[in-house]
Amino acid sequence: MKKPANYRINPWPGIKGKDIPATIELDPVIYNYAPTDAMVLDIGCACGKVSIPIAIHGYSVTGIDINTDVLELAKHSSGSQQCPMSPSFLKANATALPFPDETFDLCVMQAFLTTVVSKEDRSRIIREACHVLKPDGHLYIADFGQTWHSNIYRERYINDLPVTKEEGSFMAYDEKTGEVDYISHHFTEKELVFLLVENGFEIEYFKRDTFVTRTGNRVNGFVVVGRKRLNMHDEGK
Amino acid sequence: MKKPANYRINPWPGIKGKDIPATIELDPVIYNYAPTDAMVLDIGCACGKVSIPIAIHGYSVTGIDINTDVLELAKHSSGSQQCPMSPSFLKANATALPFPDETFDLCVMQAFLTTVVSKEDRSRIIREACHVLKPDGHLYIADFGQTWHSNIYRERYINDLPVTKEEGSFMAYDEKTGEVDYISHHFTEKELVFLLVENGFEIEYFKRDTFVTRTGNRVNGFVVVGRKRLNMHDEGK
Repeated sequence: MKKPANYRINPWPGIKGKDIPATIELDPVIYNYAPTDAMVLDIGCACGKVSIPIAIHGYSVTGIDINTDVLELAKHSSGSQQCPMSPSFLKANATALPFPDETFDLCVMQAFLTTVVSKEDRSRIIREACHVLKPDGHLYIADFGQTWHSNIYRERYINDLPVTKEEGSFMAYDEKTGEVDYISHHFTEKELVFLLVENGFEIEYFKRDTFVTRTGNRVNGFVVVGRKRLNMHDEGK
Repeated sequence: MKKPANYRINPWPGIKGKDIPATIELDPVIYNYAPTDAMVLDIGCACGKVSIPIAIHGYSVTGIDINTDVLELAKHSSGSQQCPMSPSFLKANATALPFPDETFDLCVMQAFLTTVVSKEDRSRIIREACHVLKPDGHLYIADFGQTWHSNIYRERYINDLPVTKEEGSFMAYDEKTGEVDYISHHFTEKELVFLLVENGFEIEYFKRDTFVTRTGNRVNGFVVVGRKRLNMHDEGK
């Protein structure tokens, strides 16, 4: 078994872009939070499954990822689409964004935080998104929820806890080698809400949804929109 | 402020039956788990809001509650309805049910566990329901979920924790006197699932829903159906 710590650096070290799980559909509610001519940042863009449709809607989109393979795939895919402005894809780390403060109107994290298995990194990532958002900018998150009613996931959360050290995290294995492919995290509502309210946002929209994983399991999910708080001292409200 | 401990005995000491919160509508899925001629036990029946429609559907229903006032109201309401068999209402404590083992096909707890502010009592209540169910009998639960995305509930859970000593519990106050009327508990999915699987049931059906409280707040909710496990040693599966 590989050391889980590896996955803090690059959660998809040996995985081809097309195989990376990206099974959540973009919720149309996102367009309520994209003003005309919005600058959009897609954080953890993978192969562009979210960036490209947003660009097709006419927005200026920048997609970042730390995985060079998927960025190539994203560039290739977007080239074959009719976008008013082609999205830009570049390699960057979500914990240290290479953009000036107050650059974007909307940040997007779709099935991305699930791949970040360090609580501290997740907080850092949300704060970074907050910095690069304009005042009153929005953060759209769609991600997986802990699904305790499922026997499969309940067992995975419990059995993998001694390794993952975080409730709701679990290991996915390579079918051929049997080695750990990556660790995923599923969120509670409380966890996701506090991740936002403790790192610069207030909750503007919250929906409980059901997503289908790439292996066909039905799993709880959340679609959340946070609004950047103007007064950073007004924390937790 | 009255001592919260009072409410373990009778959560609605000074409240008239019609004022007791019973805002969750009966989910029609319940009838999938009621065989022909089913014997149904409505635990914490209050004024019969659930017992009466089930009786109208042609089932034999017994409703129990510890509050004599609401039982009178339930009897009065059911008398004016066209039921093939009138439901029976009787005073009983859910932690010590006065029925032989394997009496009922279906137990119902609708917006009832929210009023039981002791974790131990909740476990005892589920085990009691398990005892009085026939083999392969079902337990239908509809109850409130912790709603962390709501500023109102988030503050109540946090502010009231020093008194309630249980996350997700909060106090409701009498509008006139300002005294604590009762304590309610909102559940997490994990909590509700383990309450069942650790006390004799496996999860047969699970739905996340949204309920409206009697004060008009929208709040997370769950509809859960457990099936009595035949092998009690097969816990947690």
